[in-house]
Amino acid sequence: MANKIRVTVWGENVHEKEMPVVAKIYPKGMHGCIADGLAEDPGLEVKTATLDMPEHGLTEEVLAKTDVLTWWGHAAHDRVSDEIVWRVQTRVLEGMGLVVLHSGHYSKIFRRLMGTQCSLCWREADEIARHWICNPGHPIVQGIEGRYFEVPQDEMYGEPFAIPSPDEQIFIAHFEGGEVFRSGGVFRRQNGLIFYFQPGHETYPVYYQKEIKLVLKNAVHYIAPRGPLWKDSAPHIPPEQSPIPITKK
Amino acid sequence: MANKIRVTVWGENVHEKEMPVVAKIYPKGMHGCIADGLAEDPGLEVKTATLDMPEHGLTEEVLAKTDVLTWWGHAAHDRVSDEIVWRVQTRVLEGMGLVVLHSGHYSKIFRRLMGTQCSLCWREADEIARHWICNPGHPIVQGIEGRYFEVPQDEMYGEPFAIPSPDEQIFIAHFEGGEVFRSGGVFRRQNGLIFYFQPGHETYPVYYQKEIKLVLKNAVHYIAPRGPLWKDSAPHIPPEQSPIPITKK
Amino acid sequence: MANKIRVTVWGENVHEKEMPVVAKIYPKGMHGCIADGLAEDPGLEVKTATLDMPEHGLTEEVLAKTDVLTWWGHAAHDRVSDEIVWRVQTRVLEGMGLVVLHSGHYSKIFRRLMGTQCSLCWREADEIARHWICNPGHPIVQGIEGRYFEVPQDEMYGEPFAIPSPDEQIFIAHFEGGEVFRSGGVFRRQNGLIFYFQPGHETYPVYYQKEIKLVLKNAVHYIAPRGPLWKDSAPHIPPEQSPIPITKK
Amino acid sequence: MANKIRVTVWGENVHEKEMPVVAKIYPKGMHGCIADGLAEDPGLEVKTATLDMPEHGLTEEVLAKTDVLTWWGHAAHDRVSDEIVWRVQTRVLEGMGLVVLHSGHYSKIFRRLMGTQCSLCWREADEIARHWICNPGHPIVQGIEGRYFEVPQDEMYGEPFAIPSPDEQIFIAHFEGGEVFRSGGVFRRQNGLIFYFQPGHETYPVYYQKEIKLVLKNAVHYIAPRGPLWKDSAPHIPPEQSPIPITKK
Repeated sequence: MANKIRVTVWGENVHEKEMPVVAKIYPKGMHGCIADGLAEDPGLEVKTATLDMPEHGLTEEVLAKTDVLTWWGHAAHDRVSDEIVWRVQTRVLEGMGLVVLHSGHYSKIFRRLMGTQCSLCWREADEIARHWICNPGHPIVQGIEGRYFEVPQDEMYGEPFAIPSPDEQIFIAHFEGGEVFRSGGVFRRQNGLIFYFQPGHETYPVYYQKEIKLVLKNAVHYIAPRGPLWKDSAPHIPPEQSPIPITKK
Repeated sequence: MANKIRVTVWGENVHEKEMPVVAKIYPKGMHGCIADGLAEDPGLEVKTATLDMPEHGLTEEVLAKTDVLTWWGHAAHDRVSDEIVWRVQTRVLEGMGLVVLHSGHYSKIFRRLMGTQCSLCWREADEIARHWICNPGHPIVQGIEGRYFEVPQDEMYGEPFAIPSPDEQIFIAHFEGGEVFRSGGVFRRQNGLIFYFQPGHETYPVYYQKEIKLVLKNAVHYIAPRGPLWKDSAPHIPPEQSPIPITKK
Repeated sequence: MANKIRVTVWGENVHEKEMPVVAKIYPKGMHGCIADGLAEDPGLEVKTATLDMPEHGLTEEVLAKTDVLTWWGHAAHDRVSDEIVWRVQTRVLEGMGLVVLHSGHYSKIFRRLMGTQCSLCWREADEIARHWICNPGHPIVQGIEGRYFEVPQDEMYGEPFAIPSPDEQIFIAHFEGGEVFRSGGVFRRQNGLIFYFQPGHETYPVYYQKEIKLVLKNAVHYIAPRGPLWKDSAPHIPPEQSPIPITKK
Repeated sequence: MANKIRVTVWGENVHEKEMPVVAKIYPKGMHGCIADGLAEDPGLEVKTATLDMPEHGLTEEVLAKTDVLTWWGHAAHDRVSDEIVWRVQTRVLEGMGLVVLHSGHYSKIFRRLMGTQCSLCWREADEIARHWICNPGHPIVQGIEGRYFEVPQDEMYGEPFAIPSPDEQIFIAHFEGGEVFRSGGVFRRQNGLIFYFQPGHETYPVYYQKEIKLVLKNAVHYIAPRGPLWKDSAPHIPPEQSPIPITKK
């Protein structure tokens, strides 16, 4: 790991080009806004990649220089190639951190890592979302004042959220209409840590919000690899490499 | 396990004697009401025990005939003897199911089994509690109509709830004031399953409610032991009982 | 769930046709032998399916009548169609039990459900494998006499086994050469339980062994669905279906 | 957290005074040897504390200056006062790391944090123990050469080990007689990480061994707190502190 944590912000970048309301809120793309927020942290070195780039911008070379990848996708999950998904998954299992944002719950990469459907219920109704802190001592929530933070308008995501139980529950949200949702959780898969974080519907300026930027910076630090990556294999072990002599029968 | 699941409903039975409002709502004691609700299920054989009985009603004989124990306590957690707590804990680890209700979150038995503080934040303000179903396919929620059920008035319990991550998240509640809480979860400890369930402040008739009775019946069936109890020990194993001969050095 | 637990034993059935040594040990196919062992239990209704059948024998109709599926594959993991894998995975998430045997650790279905590589190290050297019981009270080990059972000759599988931590560790094996392996574990994914069990290399008569048949019968009972299957979706929830009125902004 | 990680090495220090064989191997006490090994790491500031000191050497002041505590006990578990155990447990839950060594599996502090019996089987027969690496990418195993490391003579500990499933399995051991044991695992409780590590019977010079010292140093770094400690409480929340106005009924 370099001195700085190397972050690649991946954006689907489809709504930005097709929906004027999104383009207006995010003139540099959602990925541009997320990257700008992270780049405020001098400990992070931030680049971006998008679906429309060759290999979706996620070449072997890019991943080899990425400590933490963030993922926002929605309209084009099925246009992400299975080969690239597998490449990213492999890298996560080796130790790269992954932040999955909002509608990324239904991305191939998140579903592959969870092993479950990752479905939920939803509604677009300009609702207040309140994200309550489940562990005030957790590194990811440091700097947030109070017991919760509020997103003034966001899409509602509600339970049932079809995930395995998170290893660490960081936030649980409730929405104006009354629904609740496990809105922030950490999952371990081999050496990789995955942080799912609910806020961020494309039609609201969520990623400009102070608390969101803070949580993302904290999360990147928390899930960055703490040791060398491990490329697993399925090695054949000849008898002479075992500690006890084996008698072939 | 007998043909019927043998349930012991344990009640602290202090508020009922000291607070007229509670005595009026629960003339047979809270434990009496909970037991009556469970006894509606012909598959259950239900008895009660209370703090003021010898050995708190939880003698070796009683526990030996208990498949599932339910626990409601609040005012007198520290009057439960450590010896009885250890006896109950041992039985849970052997395989007995345990349902911990409401303020039982701070009971010795729950904290001992969790290993954590089990603290939370709280407020008594006659609030509506809505318990959302996190997994509509789970046996514990079968029979509940809709996406959630509502308790018209209850004490608010809110995050942070200082527990280990539940093995299975069954319910998450939100309260009228906006707080959220992991209100139903299953935990495994050796062979015992523990179900924590939030509803049931003593000043409201919560345990008469149809959905509450339903969840408790379902939970008893779900956490009842599925095999023989296992009394663990720390046996010395002499060399001749091992599969590979050992050369004493 | 019917009165009897309906089991489908899936076999790749390739080695049996291509390797005389396997054909000789398993004249009815490995799946045939596994099915015969399970069928000794009057509580089970057992059928078989193989890779070479249309849709690999795993049509929607077959899965709809399957409570527990067992899976043995090795040489042809990549010939199992992604569509069928997804169909099986979906059914597991809804609640069907899945037993994954031996080299099935590298099957598409197991890796998809785990989210990890599921790699391990290995050696074919006719080694004794001893499977130690990690919890003598667990339903899956009932009937096994002693602290472990021995497979006289099997392929060595050794750590590192690249899986998420099992929800329940049932067996850990050591092999004659000294290696160790988490050889029996239970994993939960949504409503489905998965049991991975290491024994069963194709060139040894492992599935005829008494203890193996016993464990498989026990496992089928343990992971069979305990409630109705749940077909998850991602429903849109209109504002009028929420408990709190929402004001569109 | 200070620049250096502050480690307190706790030793029961009973065998050293009562058994000449132990006194001879560990003239500075087992705690002295463990501390010397850790002190080789310039990133650690190491102190010791023993049972016979006032408050067992674990005063509020000492704990307030401890980032990671290591614990070796055996003969005198029941002479550790419940008050001190609770003080240590509270500090772990707030975020202090805890390394539990060998016979510490039966200490009050480990059993309280696990919630289970923590029993196992055992034998003293000068056996070779081989600790296999379950995840070569884990920070705790960095620097170990090969697939396992060997302790030339140690007490055998075998399954069943009555613990909750570890959050991370680091090592699994097998012993000369054939038994296996989950010999290294990480557990999370609130903000504290606990590392249990099996090697270290008092009659063998285990804590002088290079690999043991390496693992302990690595573990201290891995489980040291990564954020501020959190002192949980159970606060009353008045209605005016909630985001949604509540109507008292």
